[in-house]
Amino acid sequence: LNKNMKAKRIAKGTITTPKGFVASGVHAGIKQNRPDVSLIMSTQPAVAAATFTRNTAKAWPVLWSMKAMRNRTHRAIIANSGNANCFNGEGGRRAVETTVKALAKAAKIGEKEILISSTGIIGEIFPIKKVLGAISALLETLSKSGGHKAAQGILTTDRVTKEYAVSLKLGKETVRIGGIAKGSGMMNPNMATMLCYLTTDAAIAKPLLAAAVKTAVQESFNRISIDTDTSTNDTVYMLANGMAGNRVISSPGKDYKAFLLALLQVMRYLAKELVKDGEGVKHIAEIHVAGTKNDKDADRIARTLAHSMLFKTMLAGEDPNWGRVVASVGSTGIAFDPNKLDISFSGKAVLHSGKVIKKNIAAIRKQLAKPETRVDVNLNLGKGEALFLTSDLTTAYVRINSWYHT
Amino acid sequence: LNKNMKAKRIAKGTITTPKGFVASGVHAGIKQNRPDVSLIMSTQPAVAAATFTRNTAKAWPVLWSMKAMRNRTHRAIIANSGNANCFNGEGGRRAVETTVKALAKAAKIGEKEILISSTGIIGEIFPIKKVLGAISALLETLSKSGGHKAAQGILTTDRVTKEYAVSLKLGKETVRIGGIAKGSGMMNPNMATMLCYLTTDAAIAKPLLAAAVKTAVQESFNRISIDTDTSTNDTVYMLANGMAGNRVISSPGKDYKAFLLALLQVMRYLAKELVKDGEGVKHIAEIHVAGTKNDKDADRIARTLAHSMLFKTMLAGEDPNWGRVVASVGSTGIAFDPNKLDISFSGKAVLHSGKVIKKNIAAIRKQLAKPETRVDVNLNLGKGEALFLTSDLTTAYVRINSWYHT
Repeated sequence: LNKNMKAKRIAKGTITTPKGFVASGVHAGIKQNRPDVSLIMSTQPAVAAATFTRNTAKAWPVLWSMKAMRNRTHRAIIANSGNANCFNGEGGRRAVETTVKALAKAAKIGEKEILISSTGIIGEIFPIKKVLGAISALLETLSKSGGHKAAQGILTTDRVTKEYAVSLKLGKETVRIGGIAKGSGMMNPNMATMLCYLTTDAAIAKPLLAAAVKTAVQESFNRISIDTDTSTNDTVYMLANGMAGNRVISSPGKDYKAFLLALLQVMRYLAKELVKDGEGVKHIAEIHVAGTKNDKDADRIARTLAHSMLFKTMLAGEDPNWGRVVASVGSTGIAFDPNKLDISFSGKAVLHSGKVIKKNIAAIRKQLAKPETRVDVNLNLGKGEALFLTSDLTTAYVRINSWYHT
Repeated sequence: LNKNMKAKRIAKGTITTPKGFVASGVHAGIKQNRPDVSLIMSTQPAVAAATFTRNTAKAWPVLWSMKAMRNRTHRAIIANSGNANCFNGEGGRRAVETTVKALAKAAKIGEKEILISSTGIIGEIFPIKKVLGAISALLETLSKSGGHKAAQGILTTDRVTKEYAVSLKLGKETVRIGGIAKGSGMMNPNMATMLCYLTTDAAIAKPLLAAAVKTAVQESFNRISIDTDTSTNDTVYMLANGMAGNRVISSPGKDYKAFLLALLQVMRYLAKELVKDGEGVKHIAEIHVAGTKNDKDADRIARTLAHSMLFKTMLAGEDPNWGRVVASVGSTGIAFDPNKLDISFSGKAVLHSGKVIKKNIAAIRKQLAKPETRVDVNLNLGKGEALFLTSDLTTAYVRINSWYHT
């Protein structure tokens, strides 16, 4: 991947920015006074790609959509917040079937052309009547400017919507990719759920769309850490309807690479917004590990650091406590040479060839007070590298998550 | 192991309770106004066992002692708090050699009969003069009642000393096992260090002592979680001097099993004290996972739950938020049947065969307000089981660890 290529950001871009997509978000009454059901539709049959949570306790909408993904084309994504429709017995399964049937009938599309998600509290009876009651309003309000409402409808404890879109040239045609996401609120639902929906008007074969989504998720959402838990409902859906009229991407050539890079740009933006909006988050850190024997070692070190409670509290404390970084590196069991180790914060070295650069400490402390920090760890042993995004661990996080009562 | 057998606890028992052991703890001036160097000696040559941190950034005393362990017999353990003697260049290595040389000469023992530990800040120049200056005082104050002082000398941010001893019959002889430990303070040093020293007057062959210590560590200290980090200095040392006069334990028979069980009792007590005294800890939980296909699955689930920030904040919030437990179980990727899952808190079911027992919630909430909770998770799929000890995650933990500045 040519990391210097960048697709063009579209101002106020969202899920409905690509051609042929409309969306809506309405208040069904699951939550108070806020949109809580969203619908995204393609005016033409689209090919879909999806990635689902690896949690073995999968929510009913996840189980249903995993099967629906076998269909050749898809038309709609329907999602609700306020109830995870998970671990609530057979009633939850029936609620998915009833919702899908009703939407298929009202929108005159196939049942298996629908993908579905829920986010919210686990183990509660699903408010099926409220959702069914909202379907006609969802369809009536579908519009080209409805992306923002749809982004609102999937939020739980998120403070802001996450929306982004880019355009890029494929041959002579301009294609667009848009996306919305919801993040890692853990206060109101029992746990964090990550939802991300993407659309594109690019023409792309289903297997290549699947490959692009898989790769981009791996390099974006799978490289962020707010806490150590994975949700029962995590889902990424992408629809591609081909309305841009580009030559169909049907092999992993130049067009595919450009498309993948643009998709990665969208997902990385949304992933970063998720971390920033995490509960109680005051600082985020982009961890760059380099100089390991291979990428796998770099990945392991970056991941360990990103999840270390001592590193995360260090970020909260705005202190260049490099000893915690060294200890985290060592705790992976990966061998390193203390005399070759470099650590820097936002470009300023705190450790060079294993020696502390005391004169930089005061300046680094100032850098760490800013909301974003870059942390570089270089083992200087090889060419392996990895990137990870993490947040600080604050008293606010603990307060939110210990004060939430069932 | 017969889990019902229990060795007899000795009131006020400590590291000097077994025959032929003396100890001391003095103020060398590394820390303010508190004992900061400790010495434990056997009046007779003893066999030793040790387990060391798996962190690849090992402190100098760990590297030295790993080599010294090859010696046939040992006589002394010397330890300091306030400086980890880690990641501080060649000066740190020389400090260990100088300390060992001075102690060997003054105590008239072999250099390789000495085991050494440090705990405290990483990356600081080792205060070798202060430690050398304390050696004569350490030797002069060695006494049968010095165990408590030695327990004090290894503390960092611990609030209380951890000491315990038991006696058991092996044949016609009574043998004793004593131990001290320091815990998971992470405020003053750069990270948590776990130190545990044990003595016994039992006669046991060195390979069997090694096996017993390894097994007992695996079932005690390796089954606790305060945070996700492992220290550069973690060490367990055990000395066995044979002064009880029992028939030498030289095979894994009945005597070995009784000894192992008693040793496990000592280590489990000390491990629990460590968790209780963890920074900011207000609640601890004993996690029992059962009914998995095998012990490995149970271990993975127990470990995941013990490290889950959402579970730990749940304990802080004193709330039976079973959804977080279900999500943690699922996040391991281990398959389970939702309709067979049982979860209980302190003996009261919150989930039975996948159904919520709402009438128990109020009573469970009262139980969770107590400082100790037992959490049972049963998958009802097989005979696997595992035990793990964890603490809550409180705002106090975050405050302590983010406010500590380098």
